[in-house]
Amino acid sequence: MRVYTADVKPEMEGQKVTLYGWVHEVRDLGGLVFILLRDREGIVQITLPRKFVSKQVFKLAKKIRRESVIAVTGEVRREEKAPGGVEIIPESIEVLNEADAPLPLEVTEKVPAELDTRLDHRFMDLRRPRVQAIFRIRHQVMQSVREFLSEEGFIEVHTPKIVSTATEGGTELFPISYFEKEAFLNQSPQLYKQVLMAAGFEKVFEIGPIFRAEEHNTTRHLNEAISIDIEMSFTDHNGVMDVLERLVQRVYEDVAEKCERYLGWLEVSLEIPELPFPRITYDEAREIAARKGEEIPWGEDLSTNALKLVGEEMGGLYFITDWPTESKPFYAMPYEDRPEISKSFDLMHGWLELSSGAQRIHLYDMLVESIKAKGMEPESFGFYLEAFRYGMPPHAGWGLGAERLIMSMLGLKNVREAVLFPRDRHRLVP
Amino acid sequence: MRVYTADVKPEMEGQKVTLYGWVHEVRDLGGLVFILLRDREGIVQITLPRKFVSKQVFKLAKKIRRESVIAVTGEVRREEKAPGGVEIIPESIEVLNEADAPLPLEVTEKVPAELDTRLDHRFMDLRRPRVQAIFRIRHQVMQSVREFLSEEGFIEVHTPKIVSTATEGGTELFPISYFEKEAFLNQSPQLYKQVLMAAGFEKVFEIGPIFRAEEHNTTRHLNEAISIDIEMSFTDHNGVMDVLERLVQRVYEDVAEKCERYLGWLEVSLEIPELPFPRITYDEAREIAARKGEEIPWGEDLSTNALKLVGEEMGGLYFITDWPTESKPFYAMPYEDRPEISKSFDLMHGWLELSSGAQRIHLYDMLVESIKAKGMEPESFGFYLEAFRYGMPPHAGWGLGAERLIMSMLGLKNVREAVLFPRDRHRLVP
Repeated sequence: MRVYTADVKPEMEGQKVTLYGWVHEVRDLGGLVFILLRDREGIVQITLPRKFVSKQVFKLAKKIRRESVIAVTGEVRREEKAPGGVEIIPESIEVLNEADAPLPLEVTEKVPAELDTRLDHRFMDLRRPRVQAIFRIRHQVMQSVREFLSEEGFIEVHTPKIVSTATEGGTELFPISYFEKEAFLNQSPQLYKQVLMAAGFEKVFEIGPIFRAEEHNTTRHLNEAISIDIEMSFTDHNGVMDVLERLVQRVYEDVAEKCERYLGWLEVSLEIPELPFPRITYDEAREIAARKGEEIPWGEDLSTNALKLVGEEMGGLYFITDWPTESKPFYAMPYEDRPEISKSFDLMHGWLELSSGAQRIHLYDMLVESIKAKGMEPESFGFYLEAFRYGMPPHAGWGLGAERLIMSMLGLKNVREAVLFPRDRHRLVP
Repeated sequence: MRVYTADVKPEMEGQKVTLYGWVHEVRDLGGLVFILLRDREGIVQITLPRKFVSKQVFKLAKKIRRESVIAVTGEVRREEKAPGGVEIIPESIEVLNEADAPLPLEVTEKVPAELDTRLDHRFMDLRRPRVQAIFRIRHQVMQSVREFLSEEGFIEVHTPKIVSTATEGGTELFPISYFEKEAFLNQSPQLYKQVLMAAGFEKVFEIGPIFRAEEHNTTRHLNEAISIDIEMSFTDHNGVMDVLERLVQRVYEDVAEKCERYLGWLEVSLEIPELPFPRITYDEAREIAARKGEEIPWGEDLSTNALKLVGEEMGGLYFITDWPTESKPFYAMPYEDRPEISKSFDLMHGWLELSSGAQRIHLYDMLVESIKAKGMEPESFGFYLEAFRYGMPPHAGWGLGAERLIMSMLGLKNVREAVLFPRDRHRLVP
């Protein structure tokens, strides 16, 4: 019976099991050899006392190279000094694929490595339990997001990534040659998810890649990222903020409950955020920053420094609402009585922006004016604008960066830690 | 209380409800007006006898334009002649967004339209219950796939779509300008999911876009599609065929159980496929085709015509196994005793290929030889090949086209019907 390392328990003493995995370490004490076998769930000790194992198995264990892939069949024995309180006395060891030496990167974490070196040999880096743990948690985050949104009546959709129209004007786009035409990689599913409101879907979500040709090379920017997007009809910004905070709480709860082992590998203990998340307006955020010495002229975006000061005061998760209309994209709905302010919000974690959302403009004439006011041409939004002329319901939505959510939840220092194979200004390989 | 049309039942007689939706049809009989209100779950009749509704509401109903978005509050009444056996006597009707006239496309399906016209105005086309139904079922397919694979211990991953290496040589790639570098849109997560086997994930799945610059413009090709991919360690082609057929069965079961209403809109009744799916070898498939008059020289791919003949004989879902090594990609594992045959398979539905898979070559030297034998250069597979040198487990996997699965399950005539906004040789908008 094949089992994972984590499934081998002291109560199984005397049982015969088969394990597959990697040779994490070999300790050769002469007449006694220890192999630490690692699989995705943990590490187990294979103990080879010369007297109790076959000559052939003992010989093989002595010359086995670290990180080789092996299959081990043997008997479980209680051993308090071994990890997990058990060891395996092997009957057979088969080398399924031998590793070359020296290794391009250490898995045992005895030697710290720079992030760039780690990413160059990402397949080795990902074998480290601390790194593996991030992606086990990421898996749970994705499942929780989908379960929650499906339960709430959202329909999962896939919109095209090859597009002819820039979502928010012409900046930060990667151009593609699409046969004889010019096309772009989509920056956001924004226009498509709004069109789906006109199509009567009412509540949709998409989890998919977005592409931004940002020149910034910071610890929180990626050129290819996974965006969690929703759009919802017959509601406003408050309705979708409510969905967002309940979603984030659910993700924290599920990870705390279902990923205990991996949180342990990361030495992270999660605190479940309480509802509702604190809400401050843009004006209040400006005041906090000003009080701490950073003045932001009204209408401008909050600078990184201002956000750091606000984040310091607010702590974990909170909303900044009611942004100036001029600082938000053309599709954000202004307040009826104060058109210089929009029904928009950002979800923050400390100083990190996790999500941006708003009630959207659903009225054709207002939307055309708003596009013009941003200096863009309504003509380049043909299929999008058509959808507003024949029955577009009021709607609202947001986009949430999956990597930033994971980064902030786990306290990672660089957003690249939350991506298997990150893409940035300089990195296209692996 | 806001309810969906499908939730309004005769038992609710006398209750006050609010509905949001689109004006599907208006029938004006003078002193009596009927409005059919449509939302994503169905259609309900709003009945306005002049004597029983307010003057203002009656006047509004008389001039309301089709496909306008309205909110209706009123009382539920049993009415056997109305759809669902109920009608609403409105207390108030609010026009949330009025539709222009004439409409670019009819929603009522009285007028058939060409696929191209439908796709040009996709937001209107998607309002048709028959079209909407496809995407409600697609949602369920996606959830079932993820639930099944998660239950089986697969970890969901996201691999980059912007890549520097062609997966299978240089053909059919869309080039991108990635800052100062040349890059491509990924054709398949193949290389990355294999690298993740070296990283110790053991079982991964990805659901994401793939991009193919195929010149073909057929009813079964897309230039951007959603691929369901798995890769699994310590198993062979038989192991992953087993996962695949159980997955497909589960999808059929879940759709039959949970999408009854939408299957009804499509007039489709699903037959759950039995396990195991029939398996024939490539040689047997060639014999069937030959018997029916289509000779395929050994080693060549089966032509569309040959597949039609085989599909005719085999019926629904079946596997074609043991393909010639030369007809499959470089990473397919040959049989030890017959290296001209590979441990590969296609899952077919009739003559349509849904999925392709194989045990993979996990041995570095054999892989380098195989790349060379296909006329490619090992140097262009740097990061991929490195992963095979330091502990790559034996593994196998497959890719399954989401749209083709849905197309074959629902008997759609064109794969574009299964995509919200299809991309093909000529279509980049909407």
